[in-house]
Amino acid sequence: MPELRQNPVSKEWVIIATERAQRPEELGAGICQIPSKEKENCPFCEGHEHLTPGEILSYRTYGTKPDTPGWWIRIVPNKFAALMPQGSTERVHCEDFFTYMDGLGEHEVLIESPNHDLSIAIMEQKHVEEVFLAYRERYITLSRDPRFEMVIIFKNHGRGAGTSLRHPHSQIIATPITPMHVRHRIEEAMRYFDGHGHCVYCDMIQKEKSQGERLVLESDNFIVLEPFAASSPFETWVLPKKHDSTFDNISPEGTKELAYVMRITLSKIYKSLNNPDYNFVIFSSPCHERGLEYYHWHIQIIPRVSSVAGFELGSGIYINTVIPESAADFLRKTLAE
Amino acid sequence: MPELRQNPVSKEWVIIATERAQRPEELGAGICQIPSKEKENCPFCEGHEHLTPGEILSYRTYGTKPDTPGWWIRIVPNKFAALMPQGSTERVHCEDFFTYMDGLGEHEVLIESPNHDLSIAIMEQKHVEEVFLAYRERYITLSRDPRFEMVIIFKNHGRGAGTSLRHPHSQIIATPITPMHVRHRIEEAMRYFDGHGHCVYCDMIQKEKSQGERLVLESDNFIVLEPFAASSPFETWVLPKKHDSTFDNISPEGTKELAYVMRITLSKIYKSLNNPDYNFVIFSSPCHERGLEYYHWHIQIIPRVSSVAGFELGSGIYINTVIPESAADFLRKTLAE
Repeated sequence: MPELRQNPVSKEWVIIATERAQRPEELGAGICQIPSKEKENCPFCEGHEHLTPGEILSYRTYGTKPDTPGWWIRIVPNKFAALMPQGSTERVHCEDFFTYMDGLGEHEVLIESPNHDLSIAIMEQKHVEEVFLAYRERYITLSRDPRFEMVIIFKNHGRGAGTSLRHPHSQIIATPITPMHVRHRIEEAMRYFDGHGHCVYCDMIQKEKSQGERLVLESDNFIVLEPFAASSPFETWVLPKKHDSTFDNISPEGTKELAYVMRITLSKIYKSLNNPDYNFVIFSSPCHERGLEYYHWHIQIIPRVSSVAGFELGSGIYINTVIPESAADFLRKTLAE
Repeated sequence: MPELRQNPVSKEWVIIATERAQRPEELGAGICQIPSKEKENCPFCEGHEHLTPGEILSYRTYGTKPDTPGWWIRIVPNKFAALMPQGSTERVHCEDFFTYMDGLGEHEVLIESPNHDLSIAIMEQKHVEEVFLAYRERYITLSRDPRFEMVIIFKNHGRGAGTSLRHPHSQIIATPITPMHVRHRIEEAMRYFDGHGHCVYCDMIQKEKSQGERLVLESDNFIVLEPFAASSPFETWVLPKKHDSTFDNISPEGTKELAYVMRITLSKIYKSLNNPDYNFVIFSSPCHERGLEYYHWHIQIIPRVSSVAGFELGSGIYINTVIPESAADFLRKTLAE
């Protein structure tokens, strides 16, 4: 059973999940030598449904049975789950110093396609829409669970972004705690709101629209930009233009538009940087803090083209070798697939 | 000239340093394919002194000239400096929203040995002492510069830890700002001090000594442990037992003892994990905030045996697959070289 531990000096939470462990001797291999699974034993390929835990949700042909072929999107529990849906949300305080709790939560894998070699950048629009509709569906379900404080939807694409599985997939983790990282971001937004009377993200969108040099693209309801202080080359944000603190208030129609904007953006990045490793994350408010005036949900896309070294770990300051204005110009000029 | 930009939503600072840039097409190669320099064109090898900027400090044989052979430790400006020692500490506020400033600072490389293939884990004790005495010397000099707020000493060992140069070296960066990352850590320590009347790190040392299961080793003045909420496998902290917020208050004798403790610890990690990639960072208070009752300088060693993926980027929650108690037990039982 995984455990959540709170760092007594920083108050950050860490998940200790030894079910995912390697032996110490194997750890030394490092992140650059993770062996890749080939198609024939890929647990996410069609016909290999028995290699994953039973499905939670699937979009599949009418009449086909769960955990058999016939699906085009499939959500299953992560076989090596970092958190498990059992246990209590009670904190345990030990020796008047250490705080820990059950590793309660959900850890799901969203298999984006039966096709092993696809990726969002090169998928059909209709299919990307269904991926995002599935995100929304799971977000709505998990965020209503009173045991969970955060629902984090993210994608690791490529080894440098932390996955050894090539088959296109995203992950959804629901946690029973709100991490300090999120509290700090929200606190800054709240401070700005108190001083200005506006959401800092709304103001940023307005400033970026008037300057224009960091914009990548714009649709009716979304804006895509390279943030002023991007922490790595080609870091890209996708924001709804209308203020909303929670991802799941989006309508099905809005979700399809978001899917379009994400597909075009990822396709531009795919072409510009030759299919780089990347992560994206949907940032939304804590589940039970809805309708916040000062927070604004958005997606961050982070191509993993530079490394995090001792300086970043020690200072939290990132070194970015590409000016965001140049990256935006480059992406604007790159035609999507 | 590099530039520091403040993220308007998180208030974190980022260094934009395009002198270090690759072309966008080259970025796609990712962090796992950085080409390694071979010995014959290694800028840090003896006889290649002309390949680096002129030395700032060296420990060398009496009578030998700067920037010629005869040294055993050599400190030079980083040829691809993230910050430069020119410019102003004034913040520039633009459009009533964006904040930036000159990329003022120092970025130095400490070449730890003329020997291309050594590393601290397998160096002679005497040599490691001189590396740490050199850290101390540069820390003292840079931290007295009124333009600088932080001096960060760190080491990237191996490609997975962010370096493409195999030759043993550390880096020293002085920044004109205190990052939010550091402010948050100090704020938590202050809050604990106000509630308990003790330094949280001092209390942690006491609790860890009485529990014992996360201790790795102990000397007269230092303690080495796996922290309760280690964020990655074999994350290891080295702390002075006597309270002090600033690294450079350490005496030359204390520095030699620290060198011993670091050498033994790194040697245990080297043997346990088969020479893993790792970072270490010296955490010290901001330069001009000395003698703090609530902060405690220390060193964090982070073997880079797991990857940072979308979940960590989005939530700040790390997933650790090794229980710190097991890692401590393993390191205790591993004999140093």
